[in-house]
Amino acid sequence: MIHKHGGDIYSYHDIKDFSANINFRGMPSSVREAAIEAVDESIHYPDPECRSLRTRLAEREKKFCAAVLPEHIICGNGAAELFFALAGAFRPEQALLPVPSFFEYEQALSAFGCKITRFAVNPEEGFCLGESFLNAVSAFAKQFPSHRLMIILGNPNNPTGALIETDVLLALIQLCGSARILLVLDESFLDFLDETDQKRTISGAVKVPEDPNLFVIRSFTKIYALPGIRFGYGLCSDQELLGKMRMLVQPWNVSHVAQKAAETAAGEAEFVRISAEMISENRDELIRALREIGLTVFPSAANFLLFRGSENLGAACLTDGILIRDCSNFPALETTGDGTAYFRVCVRSRAENEELVNVIRRCLEECG
Amino acid sequence: MIHKHGGDIYSYHDIKDFSANINFRGMPSSVREAAIEAVDESIHYPDPECRSLRTRLAEREKKFCAAVLPEHIICGNGAAELFFALAGAFRPEQALLPVPSFFEYEQALSAFGCKITRFAVNPEEGFCLGESFLNAVSAFAKQFPSHRLMIILGNPNNPTGALIETDVLLALIQLCGSARILLVLDESFLDFLDETDQKRTISGAVKVPEDPNLFVIRSFTKIYALPGIRFGYGLCSDQELLGKMRMLVQPWNVSHVAQKAAETAAGEAEFVRISAEMISENRDELIRALREIGLTVFPSAANFLLFRGSENLGAACLTDGILIRDCSNFPALETTGDGTAYFRVCVRSRAENEELVNVIRRCLEECG
Repeated sequence: MIHKHGGDIYSYHDIKDFSANINFRGMPSSVREAAIEAVDESIHYPDPECRSLRTRLAEREKKFCAAVLPEHIICGNGAAELFFALAGAFRPEQALLPVPSFFEYEQALSAFGCKITRFAVNPEEGFCLGESFLNAVSAFAKQFPSHRLMIILGNPNNPTGALIETDVLLALIQLCGSARILLVLDESFLDFLDETDQKRTISGAVKVPEDPNLFVIRSFTKIYALPGIRFGYGLCSDQELLGKMRMLVQPWNVSHVAQKAAETAAGEAEFVRISAEMISENRDELIRALREIGLTVFPSAANFLLFRGSENLGAACLTDGILIRDCSNFPALETTGDGTAYFRVCVRSRAENEELVNVIRRCLEECG
Repeated sequence: MIHKHGGDIYSYHDIKDFSANINFRGMPSSVREAAIEAVDESIHYPDPECRSLRTRLAEREKKFCAAVLPEHIICGNGAAELFFALAGAFRPEQALLPVPSFFEYEQALSAFGCKITRFAVNPEEGFCLGESFLNAVSAFAKQFPSHRLMIILGNPNNPTGALIETDVLLALIQLCGSARILLVLDESFLDFLDETDQKRTISGAVKVPEDPNLFVIRSFTKIYALPGIRFGYGLCSDQELLGKMRMLVQPWNVSHVAQKAAETAAGEAEFVRISAEMISENRDELIRALREIGLTVFPSAANFLLFRGSENLGAACLTDGILIRDCSNFPALETTGDGTAYFRVCVRSRAENEELVNVIRRCLEECG
């Protein structure tokens, strides 16, 4: 059984979930406390304008760009809601999407009638965007000269974990700006970058205040481990676009619990730094261990890994109480009949990762 | 300063809020506890299909209609989200809306390009729908014979509190069915009906399983006092329409906290019954007291009252620390230059209501 999304713990009992990309350290205790306190305040409506929260988020953005202001920020009931609001507000006619990438990009675009051109990224190049994608963007702009165009890129990308290198990213921003393509950068996993990877890329936030063709999306769901509370936000300097998005969602889309949890999370810089470093170490170990048992593991800058292995591995792990993400329903990661498939696993604690490796090893031995 | 919505407690300090229509008894303690417990579980994604919750909701619906099934139910991040999803999925070209009514109907319809015909309900008839509205529906159907049509009605209606009598409602359901108009019944305040008013109307749920032209919307926000957590749901037997709505919203639109709070709330039948009876008594007293000081108060079946008074009453109450809802920005309730305006107040505890009456009395005396 292949699930459309990771994290479906509700179909099973007593499962260890490696399929959802959530910070294994859990929610910071300060965030948990803020959320609990907010439950008692929830007899009141949330602030529809998220005023206090946007002020805190603008402060948080200073680590990327000092010029980001509260009015550049739009808050969402998770980052996922923002993709739908953005597709509905911008109404792109054509979109170029590298694949594999996050499922909801296509669903949100299709829901509003946008046609999609897929660009298959090369596994041999670690699924990294480079020269060939830049050429594809130029061709895309030429092919649809008078259309409303959009490109959505994950940095790092889900489910591959691939980073967009700084020079490629800056070239893309410039190219989209001159071709008037709305470039959407999904930075939901950018907070997981370790110090080394931080030097290899930049946040799109740097260009947001000056470039109205750029839209950056962040998620608090993953790094602060609050997917059940939900919070994400967008950064953009096109006020008309932000206004249209606000008209497309209800006024109280971000619950009071989410606003208060996010306000507290915004100040937890040290939690983010420590999480990124711990996950980086655990990831390196996990990559080594998975490669040792013969799997093809792709480089990742995020808190998850994509690898290739025997196609019945997902079902086999499940019988041992471990849920991993079978990626066969991602466009470009379909099974090809050679007996292998792509899987994604979350990087968790050392002990949990060891358990995962042991289960996978056993499954592979049993599969033969 | 007129707010677009009630309940904006974030623009003031130490305000007593009569502007939001929330059950004054607060959240049931069982719901509060379920929400707090759910915060700890929120390191996992919510169930995108709300499976356990929809089972509970179908059980709850048995008080209205035994034939409602979990598959008739769609869950929303508050009822407000459902109006947007419904407008986006059904894409009505023309809608008929009685005014005054809830703001978000028009915003949701306009966001998806629907044209709106307003039908002004008569204050002299207590803002009740009757013969003249039935005629307007027939005329509307004839005017747009080959269009996608929608009608949205609040029962009881916000901000008037007016009920739709059973015979009128059944006639409307039949008329819309034969004219293929999607009839949306917003029953967000239906749980507040006392025993007497329950005999005057019915829930549209009764007809949902057999009539795919009917869509019923419920809210848990008001009766269980959880606007900051957010939860509402829709009932409909048109599976194609429900499927389209699901494609228009993100998969995790209902937070885990909201799902667990709503699951518990669904079982709190006694809380609902007691709330409705208490509010009914307090409402009768409040109506009497407001009429005694010379205000025109309209009959209401809900937990709020609409009245007419001196147009500076809102500002005057605010200086005494009381927030009431100035309704001048509701279409059909605009000020007419005669020095009066419409206001809406929530029915709260006896002591709070007495304080409200005292403040209003003082303001009116000072205004002269």
